Amino acid sequence: MQSQGHLVHTETAAYHLARERLQMVEERIASLLDCDIPLVREMSSYVHGNGGKRLRPALVVLCARLCGYQGDRDVDLGVVVEFIHSASLVHDDIVDGAEARRGRSCSHRVWGNQKTVLLGDFLYARALALSVALGKLRIVEVLTQATSRLVEGEILDVMHNGNAQLDLAGYMNIIDRKTASLFAGCAQAAAVLAGVSREQEAALAGFGHDVGLAFQLIDDLLDDDADSERLGKEPGTDLREGKLTYPLIHLLAHASASERELVLSCLGNPARTAAHLPDVVSTLRSNGSFAATRQEAERYAEQARTALSILPANEIREALEELPEFIVARRQ
Amino acid sequence: MQSQGHLVHTETAAYHLARERLQMVEERIASLLDCDIPLVREMSSYVHGNGGKRLRPALVVLCARLCGYQGDRDVDLGVVVEFIHSASLVHDDIVDGAEARRGRSCSHRVWGNQKTVLLGDFLYARALALSVALGKLRIVEVLTQATSRLVEGEILDVMHNGNAQLDLAGYMNIIDRKTASLFAGCAQAAAVLAGVSREQEAALAGFGHDVGLAFQLIDDLLDDDADSERLGKEPGTDLREGKLTYPLIHLLAHASASERELVLSCLGNPARTAAHLPDVVSTLRSNGSFAATRQEAERYAEQARTALSILPANEIREALEELPEFIVARRQ
Repeated sequence: MQSQGHLVHTETAAYHLARERLQMVEERIASLLDCDIPLVREMSSYVHGNGGKRLRPALVVLCARLCGYQGDRDVDLGVVVEFIHSASLVHDDIVDGAEARRGRSCSHRVWGNQKTVLLGDFLYARALALSVALGKLRIVEVLTQATSRLVEGEILDVMHNGNAQLDLAGYMNIIDRKTASLFAGCAQAAAVLAGVSREQEAALAGFGHDVGLAFQLIDDLLDDDADSERLGKEPGTDLREGKLTYPLIHLLAHASASERELVLSCLGNPARTAAHLPDVVSTLRSNGSFAATRQEAERYAEQARTALSILPANEIREALEELPEFIVARRQ
Repeated sequence: MQSQGHLVHTETAAYHLARERLQMVEERIASLLDCDIPLVREMSSYVHGNGGKRLRPALVVLCARLCGYQGDRDVDLGVVVEFIHSASLVHDDIVDGAEARRGRSCSHRVWGNQKTVLLGDFLYARALALSVALGKLRIVEVLTQATSRLVEGEILDVMHNGNAQLDLAGYMNIIDRKTASLFAGCAQAAAVLAGVSREQEAALAGFGHDVGLAFQLIDDLLDDDADSERLGKEPGTDLREGKLTYPLIHLLAHASASERELVLSCLGNPARTAAHLPDVVSTLRSNGSFAATRQEAERYAEQARTALSILPANEIREALEELPEFIVARRQ
């Protein structure tokens, strides 16, 4: 709830509307997790009580309203996309024996791999059952396709773990599937719910997609930026775990041989990452890799705003136009 | 493919039809796994090339034909239920660090937990996307509900691992969700595909449900029966892993104090299970626990056959009526 405050920060009617509907999403999440198996309730509450930004439900409720939707089903659709998102996060915590001992604490901080994988399955199944209850096959279609692409992205992500050869095109393909597909699905499903034209539906899908890319690029940037430590996020996680992201790939393409060697020696090496992160950060800074990442994120944010131009120009559109900017400016 | 020979063993027109359509299911599985990510192709082929019995697709194609369905979509529906089934099996292989060292070899025989969890997600997502493509929201509804219940059953199963107090009612609740729900979903979705009355749809759901319970009870029996070793299946897996099943719960309710102690000392203890399995088996035999389990399975098989009485009496119904009997008589 706390971080919704960051998203919904201005007292316009659109923000008031979004906040009100996100509150309804929260209540609906709580009611839907009322399963007759106590462990499922307990685990689900834990997962959804983590103060997530609820960015995807916000996208749903605002896009639905922009498309003129006046009903109440945007709340359930918001819950559906949040469940898909949290299912993917939960499965991301599954670790292999060896890696569990290499600094990742999520898995045993929770309930072990077996229960964690089943919780993710439960959330996926609950999400899709709820999307079916919305009564429109096209909504289920949009969301199952988004979920398929999300999972493909996660698989590519794991496959390229430790791959020092990953280039920007390969990287963009991963985040296109892993992150942008669900953001696109959120906006598109909201458009289908509202029943707008295919042209407007495609515009909103494009908007969501580019917001998703901008979001992921900033996420990568914050991961490498030591300053983000102040916000409780441990920096360098991607590098330590062997994942190259946009800033690091940019750096490897522009750095000197010794700088390249420094970065590659940290890739997938927790001890070296811990010891040398400040050096990596200053190298990222001196090579303009942070700036290049932010610039790319801004390019997608601008493209996202442009996509909205065929939608009605009103207060809700203004709020949605500010969303990419908010995302690029975020510090956590 | 080999074990389909066991299922489809008589040269009637119905069996010929089922075999022909199951062959189409096989070909469709191969074509659908043609993902642009090589690892996904490789893992999926491995999972589906395991010579599974394809019992669920068989249920789908026969039930659809019994309901008068003449189209080709029963093949895709057969693929959907097989993907849901294999996704659940794949996730069942996810293990915790500690348990990976305790005799289960699936996880490292495959690709490690991280990739295995994503393969299961991929199969679930592919299954549901394919069910959407069938064009009937009710089919997706039936299958998402079946999947939800399947996952709940898996969660209950893990929760009761090592629980020596599990009684028959608790156990039947687990297998009702874990196994019978998908069997029921197969038959019901086939009925929805064919567009029969709600009464006939419910009868087929009941048929599938009871076939599923009979199937699971025989599965439990084969797990404990040392004779099944001849067929390449290692007996005592459930006991070794800490899972009480119908024969064992029956035994605990009827055995002498020393016999109870023997069984409980093996529960979740691989070394003791290995050393004492022959004693456990003879105790199961002398207490009539195998016989009681088989009797219960036969009761559900009979109930399943009875459920079909409101469907047209033809050669396909005869084939379906033989299915429970085949399941109860199976040796693997």
